[in-house]
Amino acid sequence: MRSLNQFLVPVCGVALVLSTSVARAQEGSIIRDAEYRILERQHGDRWAAEDKDIDVKLAEFREKNGGKPPNILYILLDDVGFGEVGMPDLDVVRGYSTPNITDFADQGMSMMRMYTEPSCTPTRVAMLTGRHPVRTGFDEAKAVPEGEGLADREVTLAEVLSENGYATAHIGKWHMGDIEQSYAINQGFDYAEHPIHQQAQLALMNSTALNEGHVDGVDLRLRSTDLMLDDTFRIDPYAMVYGTIGEKGGAIREVHMEPGQKFSQDDYVAMGQRYKQSTLDQMEKLAKGDKPFFLQYWPLFPISFTRTDIEQAQTLNGGPVAEAIVKVDGYIGEILSRVEELGIADNTIIVIMGDNGPFMEFVDKSGQSDRIYRGGKTEHLEGGVRVSAFVRWPGMIEEGTRVKDITHVSDLFSTFARLGDGEASIPRDRIIDGVDQTALWLLGETHGRRDYVFVYEGFVLRSLVKQQYKMHLPPPGGNPILAAMYDLYKNPREDRPQDSIRIGVGFGANFSLMAQRHLAMKELYPDMPPGHGPLYGGIENLRPETKELVDNILFAQGLTINPD
Amino acid sequence: MRSLNQFLVPVCGVALVLSTSVARAQEGSIIRDAEYRILERQHGDRWAAEDKDIDVKLAEFREKNGGKPPNILYILLDDVGFGEVGMPDLDVVRGYSTPNITDFADQGMSMMRMYTEPSCTPTRVAMLTGRHPVRTGFDEAKAVPEGEGLADREVTLAEVLSENGYATAHIGKWHMGDIEQSYAINQGFDYAEHPIHQQAQLALMNSTALNEGHVDGVDLRLRSTDLMLDDTFRIDPYAMVYGTIGEKGGAIREVHMEPGQKFSQDDYVAMGQRYKQSTLDQMEKLAKGDKPFFLQYWPLFPISFTRTDIEQAQTLNGGPVAEAIVKVDGYIGEILSRVEELGIADNTIIVIMGDNGPFMEFVDKSGQSDRIYRGGKTEHLEGGVRVSAFVRWPGMIEEGTRVKDITHVSDLFSTFARLGDGEASIPRDRIIDGVDQTALWLLGETHGRRDYVFVYEGFVLRSLVKQQYKMHLPPPGGNPILAAMYDLYKNPREDRPQDSIRIGVGFGANFSLMAQRHLAMKELYPDMPPGHGPLYGGIENLRPETKELVDNILFAQGLTINPD
Repeated sequence: MRSLNQFLVPVCGVALVLSTSVARAQEGSIIRDAEYRILERQHGDRWAAEDKDIDVKLAEFREKNGGKPPNILYILLDDVGFGEVGMPDLDVVRGYSTPNITDFADQGMSMMRMYTEPSCTPTRVAMLTGRHPVRTGFDEAKAVPEGEGLADREVTLAEVLSENGYATAHIGKWHMGDIEQSYAINQGFDYAEHPIHQQAQLALMNSTALNEGHVDGVDLRLRSTDLMLDDTFRIDPYAMVYGTIGEKGGAIREVHMEPGQKFSQDDYVAMGQRYKQSTLDQMEKLAKGDKPFFLQYWPLFPISFTRTDIEQAQTLNGGPVAEAIVKVDGYIGEILSRVEELGIADNTIIVIMGDNGPFMEFVDKSGQSDRIYRGGKTEHLEGGVRVSAFVRWPGMIEEGTRVKDITHVSDLFSTFARLGDGEASIPRDRIIDGVDQTALWLLGETHGRRDYVFVYEGFVLRSLVKQQYKMHLPPPGGNPILAAMYDLYKNPREDRPQDSIRIGVGFGANFSLMAQRHLAMKELYPDMPPGHGPLYGGIENLRPETKELVDNILFAQGLTINPD
Repeated sequence: MRSLNQFLVPVCGVALVLSTSVARAQEGSIIRDAEYRILERQHGDRWAAEDKDIDVKLAEFREKNGGKPPNILYILLDDVGFGEVGMPDLDVVRGYSTPNITDFADQGMSMMRMYTEPSCTPTRVAMLTGRHPVRTGFDEAKAVPEGEGLADREVTLAEVLSENGYATAHIGKWHMGDIEQSYAINQGFDYAEHPIHQQAQLALMNSTALNEGHVDGVDLRLRSTDLMLDDTFRIDPYAMVYGTIGEKGGAIREVHMEPGQKFSQDDYVAMGQRYKQSTLDQMEKLAKGDKPFFLQYWPLFPISFTRTDIEQAQTLNGGPVAEAIVKVDGYIGEILSRVEELGIADNTIIVIMGDNGPFMEFVDKSGQSDRIYRGGKTEHLEGGVRVSAFVRWPGMIEEGTRVKDITHVSDLFSTFARLGDGEASIPRDRIIDGVDQTALWLLGETHGRRDYVFVYEGFVLRSLVKQQYKMHLPPPGGNPILAAMYDLYKNPREDRPQDSIRIGVGFGANFSLMAQRHLAMKELYPDMPPGHGPLYGGIENLRPETKELVDNILFAQGLTINPD
């Protein structure tokens, strides 16, 4: 937003007036950004007609399903970008294959133009809230404890579905904050198992990885402490909280860590296997219950950097992440088999997808690469925000299809809310970016309801996507006529910028209006701050080293709360 | 070769002695480069056993096929690199799909690691002679008349198969020279229709393309002639010979051009449609004959640059080449349907592939891009020499398979020679680079017989590929320890060079020995000069403007031959 201030000044007032009147006209409805309303005005009649047919279809499904909406199983892979799983034509490019995900893709629909946010936390926030993370204020969880997280005020998909009769559970990576209000059990999940932090702690700063030198500065054996006047600046990763388990309304406990324990790659691998096993167990329990369920499995793998635990590469690629992608494909195979065994394949919608592009910092070691789209994690380039994404719902979604329609990860919120009969629970007091893509799923290609994406890096709007075009936003004061524009089909790697004159007279100006409309709406519905609170609040069994860490952090933050 | 002279000096003598003795031991056999013999020594026993089984299989096929070996239909697409056809997961990346080639791929085997030479002429020379073009001296046909071509002394696949009872025909692009000995009918084809030159003349310098400004310097309307002391330096494209038709032993005639005619995009499109129609007609004729046939269809499309002839894009990409890829996919669909109608699907091996990467000079206009592997036509990078390649032989080659084994386009010569019962006709007085890959086709993945590729740009050896590694050769005097090396699975775009120490101690030295062995063999079997002769020799109906052009060229070459 800041980078656009100057660029916006001339017409911001006009855009604001327009937005205000349109927004008021929709009071009572879900509040939409301008870009969606522009499409709705042109296609609303067709959409309404389609929606009637879809409602009939969904009612028929519920009738056959004992009056219940479908189960939802959502599998989100960490740092897996476009073309890194499934897509067997790329096996030979990558040097490994993922047979289970490939089979899954054949049984459902491939959303070939799925956009995420460029990093783990923002993608997960967008999926669960249906909003660009910048609106929630929580656009990135740090690798160190910070006392920040997804705010209580945000309404998650788990809350929407819970309100509508779903049993909900979350297993695996969470990465939504280290404060009480942000834990999964406090964001709508009945049951949750998850680490508080992310793989920087779990996979890069574990004792095995330190021995292999993946993160140099943490390993004090190779650093003189002569300059360490501030002993608390360099965090001890082992003092941070690792895995937790909890139930809605109850306490949350750290598990599988003893005081003094140095978390190793073995512990990381064991944690990953437990999450897979817990997913199987939870799914079995949920399948036997009366309620429809919403189960999230967010594996730790494929993020893995150590070599000590690898005996022999199973792939031509041989990178630790590549090897782990094949392993997690095996996990997914087990879960899909269990779905069959439990007899819930036909009444369970399953989505499998990545959360953002590869971490380019580690690509040569890890075995990942920006093989098709340029760029990776943290970047607004297509390689950062395009992922492989597959959805299966036998009998409802045509199998073996690939759709070119644009989707954004926030659309899953709105789509699952509708399919779970929870549309009425979507809040009406804030902008919802997620578009209901039920029509795309049930009616197929060309029935998507989005032709645009706003691409943020953190709180900075960096790129605009509309149809086949993408504009990298110019720096403050930059004239959009000379902004770098790309035709994504002719130049998918965004490495040969064209100015808007060459792409088409008026396009640069239209892109700048698109940004203005989007930002002007924020005057009515401002971006909010993230949730703040005491670090690790509500975790009842902090280890002594953790208590010391908490004490240091609260002191540094000027908070007087005593963690004991 | 020149760039390696210094790099070679130290051990060249040793390598030569080694090569000499090995080569002598194989007198009477096909002469192989050192790299192949190294593999043969390690796998020869297994290969011999496999070959016995394969011979039984082939004998069974011939028995069922009236004693005849299979027909061969070879479709070679111009400037179509890896991932530009078939591979439906990439449709959404490219913005177009090729349903006929995709279906074809599903019915056969995808050779996922097919290497070509980096340009049209050398790929075609390698395929037809089984030799790196540098050995034939004919490594690139110029865009202007030059009096050069594939030498008579080279033994082509058409000659090998003709000798063994095949009827042969070539339709479409040829690009093997503008002298009599180089025309298809003088290189083993019973019947041929082809232009003498290539798309620089046909698609870039046609009157429509000149109006659109694709080639600036040729259009004299926008150039002052004040500096033109030498009136013959800038060639009149319309004076060059266009399409020809001829039969073995007969004359060759230019067709569909009148004196004074200015070849247009309409003429180019009509020529392309005629070649498709002639392929259908020839195939019908050949299918009804007694002999097995070898038919080449080398379309002019997808190379196409003009816009005047496009009414409305059929694809999201909209580039003229992208549009033409879809059109030529339609042509291929017609040809494959005709194969079915003629009842020859089961006894016809069909290969469809590209000849090199996209012409990067035109990518933003054309709609092509180096979407996966970096680089394009003329370059030793994977994007220049990796192509999509598919082979179908119902009942003999397992359908729906993808193989990761390395193949080089010269292997088609040796493989088709074997399948066409013509192995005995492969010459024994020169190095044959093509490896017989029948085992790969009939037995499947991991049965390939090549783990290396020498990548030339023209006569310069630029890269060495071995297994998953690639070395970009250092400049003269450069130490291979610091040469740029790539793990092609971890870094398919060759954009993050690693030195050989990081890839593995000894690898740099082993790569340099690999180059030395290869070059040392040339002391025994030196690279030969190309064929030379009078421009357009043997064409009986040259237009007046062509005669004038020939007169100028022969004068400039110091030849006294009168073209009349």
